[in-house]
Amino acid sequence: MLEKLKQEVYDANMDLQRKGMVIYTWGNVSGIDREKQLVVIKPSGVDYDTMKAEDMVVVDFDGNVVEGHYKPSSDTATHIALYKAYPQIGGVVHTHSTFAVTFAQAGMSIPAFGTTHADYFYGDVPCTRELTAEEIDEAYELNTGKVIIETIGDKDPLEIPGIVVKNHGPFAWGKTPAGSVYNAVVLDKVAEMAYYTMTLNPRVERVSQYLLDKHYFRKHGANAYYGQGSEDH
Amino acid sequence: MLEKLKQEVYDANMDLQRKGMVIYTWGNVSGIDREKQLVVIKPSGVDYDTMKAEDMVVVDFDGNVVEGHYKPSSDTATHIALYKAYPQIGGVVHTHSTFAVTFAQAGMSIPAFGTTHADYFYGDVPCTRELTAEEIDEAYELNTGKVIIETIGDKDPLEIPGIVVKNHGPFAWGKTPAGSVYNAVVLDKVAEMAYYTMTLNPRVERVSQYLLDKHYFRKHGANAYYGQGSEDH
Amino acid sequence: MLEKLKQEVYDANMDLQRKGMVIYTWGNVSGIDREKQLVVIKPSGVDYDTMKAEDMVVVDFDGNVVEGHYKPSSDTATHIALYKAYPQIGGVVHTHSTFAVTFAQAGMSIPAFGTTHADYFYGDVPCTRELTAEEIDEAYELNTGKVIIETIGDKDPLEIPGIVVKNHGPFAWGKTPAGSVYNAVVLDKVAEMAYYTMTLNPRVERVSQYLLDKHYFRKHGANAYYGQGSEDH
Amino acid sequence: MLEKLKQEVYDANMDLQRKGMVIYTWGNVSGIDREKQLVVIKPSGVDYDTMKAEDMVVVDFDGNVVEGHYKPSSDTATHIALYKAYPQIGGVVHTHSTFAVTFAQAGMSIPAFGTTHADYFYGDVPCTRELTAEEIDEAYELNTGKVIIETIGDKDPLEIPGIVVKNHGPFAWGKTPAGSVYNAVVLDKVAEMAYYTMTLNPRVERVSQYLLDKHYFRKHGANAYYGQGSEDH
Repeated sequence: MLEKLKQEVYDANMDLQRKGMVIYTWGNVSGIDREKQLVVIKPSGVDYDTMKAEDMVVVDFDGNVVEGHYKPSSDTATHIALYKAYPQIGGVVHTHSTFAVTFAQAGMSIPAFGTTHADYFYGDVPCTRELTAEEIDEAYELNTGKVIIETIGDKDPLEIPGIVVKNHGPFAWGKTPAGSVYNAVVLDKVAEMAYYTMTLNPRVERVSQYLLDKHYFRKHGANAYYGQGSEDH
Repeated sequence: MLEKLKQEVYDANMDLQRKGMVIYTWGNVSGIDREKQLVVIKPSGVDYDTMKAEDMVVVDFDGNVVEGHYKPSSDTATHIALYKAYPQIGGVVHTHSTFAVTFAQAGMSIPAFGTTHADYFYGDVPCTRELTAEEIDEAYELNTGKVIIETIGDKDPLEIPGIVVKNHGPFAWGKTPAGSVYNAVVLDKVAEMAYYTMTLNPRVERVSQYLLDKHYFRKHGANAYYGQGSEDH
Repeated sequence: MLEKLKQEVYDANMDLQRKGMVIYTWGNVSGIDREKQLVVIKPSGVDYDTMKAEDMVVVDFDGNVVEGHYKPSSDTATHIALYKAYPQIGGVVHTHSTFAVTFAQAGMSIPAFGTTHADYFYGDVPCTRELTAEEIDEAYELNTGKVIIETIGDKDPLEIPGIVVKNHGPFAWGKTPAGSVYNAVVLDKVAEMAYYTMTLNPRVERVSQYLLDKHYFRKHGANAYYGQGSEDH
Repeated sequence: MLEKLKQEVYDANMDLQRKGMVIYTWGNVSGIDREKQLVVIKPSGVDYDTMKAEDMVVVDFDGNVVEGHYKPSSDTATHIALYKAYPQIGGVVHTHSTFAVTFAQAGMSIPAFGTTHADYFYGDVPCTRELTAEEIDEAYELNTGKVIIETIGDKDPLEIPGIVVKNHGPFAWGKTPAGSVYNAVVLDKVAEMAYYTMTLNPRVERVSQYLLDKHYFRKHGANAYYGQGSEDH
């Protein structure tokens, strides 16, 4: 079932590795069939070298495996929480990419310093609060999803399609599995640029609201004029 | 029309990617036919993997598309402003390369610290001032060109063939499209070396005027003796 | 003799190079046959390009060459010391990978800042004390092994399967030669992330004990639920 | 003439590029025939992609071209000065590799912090003083050689086979052209590790003399026991 979505999710997972976002099995991408309310996700701890599209696991909104010969990613509950909260997203990705993890470990949001950031994220990429001992103990992966949702608050998750979870790492999302990988790659790149910017000039200030608006809306929304008309991820 | 220039511009764009200056579609190179006053530029947001020489877009000095089935790069007005102001340049490039963006975001010029810099840039690579809200609102890309020209002032743009635009990123230029890419690659490399130099030794001083002169004029101008006689980019 | 183990050790050495952990001949991996008490190790200073599985050297617990046409790695005595002290390990690796060496040279342990670290190392990766002049003079490689063992103290070496030796570099180990390489690669990656974290936020604090426990025991021990049931290295 | 040496010098130049030490034409390697007192060196500003062994230029000790259809590297006079001063060296290399240039620009020697350094350089890699305006004006490349020789003083140049020239970059040498490239690669790697070490721990101290001695003499001189007996570069 869902062979087309499995292929998309598989391709997105492989792209994650090709883009240098993961070593070994350190990442996972999922996609969703909104009509059937079924999520397709990478299996847990399976080598990228031998993984095939048919190894993708199908789970329902309660996390039950509906199809698949492997266990799904251990982060499945986090993915499902995001899909439930945000009907507008079609793909979710988690990585341990170096510079996004750096901000997660430092407990810092990634400030919007320039147009590279503004082209994709309409403001700082936030860092969540720490999970409490109870939250970790009870239902760690589900609560990771909840703290992401708490941090996003009443914003549109597609305006800033990524986050860093404190002491953990980045989650990103998008309209499709491929789009979520795109956003995860950009998130790590703007984190890298922010790291260099802040260590070069510790007193640096954020990009002006004018320039942030200009670049974000040049690419997104009704008046976008960048690209050939299908740029949104 | 302009098939040879289209090929040159296409090759230069592909070289930009090969040299690691761009991910996804984050860069653009153009070239000019001075006689016809026509600019050939990369289309906006088209994948490098599928892009062909014939996809390059031809625009006139008013930014009108003269030939091409794609929209030109959204930065076209910046390129045209530079070609209009400086008859001696034959190629323009814009990237979001990591270390040049770092200086742009930090709002700092790239100081001339050594001979690697002096071989190609006769002095600091300047950082422009911020654009005003009005400048961004009215004609953002054109005004980006204007603030570059304002910053260069009455200098010869080929003596320092690159700049960083505050909170944005680098523009570079040269005698040809390929030469402008060469200069963009060098600009990012000297920015990288400057970053490491300044974080290693925060009190570091610039290279002496003597050594700057020596290296610059060893490669450029009437008394150049580096290379086989055709080194200028 | 031990052709299968030789192949494993050879493959692990080649993987070390493929993963970017070594340049030239700067690293060595060994494996052990516990029944025969024989160690198979990379020859000293032989090029990776021309090295073959049959070039691996077999040594006994006194360091005598039992089979092989090359001299064994100059670090052989360190490997043997670790095998003698810890019956639970089946592979040892030494590298000069960049970020692990950085912590070794800085004389600092690698603090546990996040889940990337906690997934593999149950606490800080320690840095040994300096060897004394006498220890260096007498039996340098053996004493390197001893100071590692002294630093581990009464902990289980598989809970934190790596260390940095002061002013020298990392040693890592695992249940197999391949597992020890895996741990060496992760050690360098968490060192890299720790470096960026500490220079971005000099006041950063360690990951909470709760999250450290959660991630470590999600992957290791009786209640592990990450992967398909064979994740331990 | 000297076809074998030309091939060696060509191979060493190509290896410099393969090891990531140079972009474009930013480096040069030479070798010497001591009997004939002829130096074979890379031509100036010729692309690595099209360069052939037969393009190497033969010059005598006065810098006159004895054979070759290209101009020799503009740094030829520096190479010759080193060959004249040090009969024990057989290859010289100059690069603009990133981290060695960083120390050159910062005006700092590369401190010996660990065994990676000690394995190849018996002490800090020094940084020369600045050249005076007169020295630059008169005979820049020759005087670059002289300030290197002045900095080495009465030490054996093979004990520390490299240097950084202030505001310029590294020169390295060895017993052969290939050996000099090896030393240039190691020089940049230890510079990189030193950069990270010093920015991680600004109060870090040098490796002890004991450990420096141990590692250096484990690889070099009469009592060396590393490798298979032919390790010196």
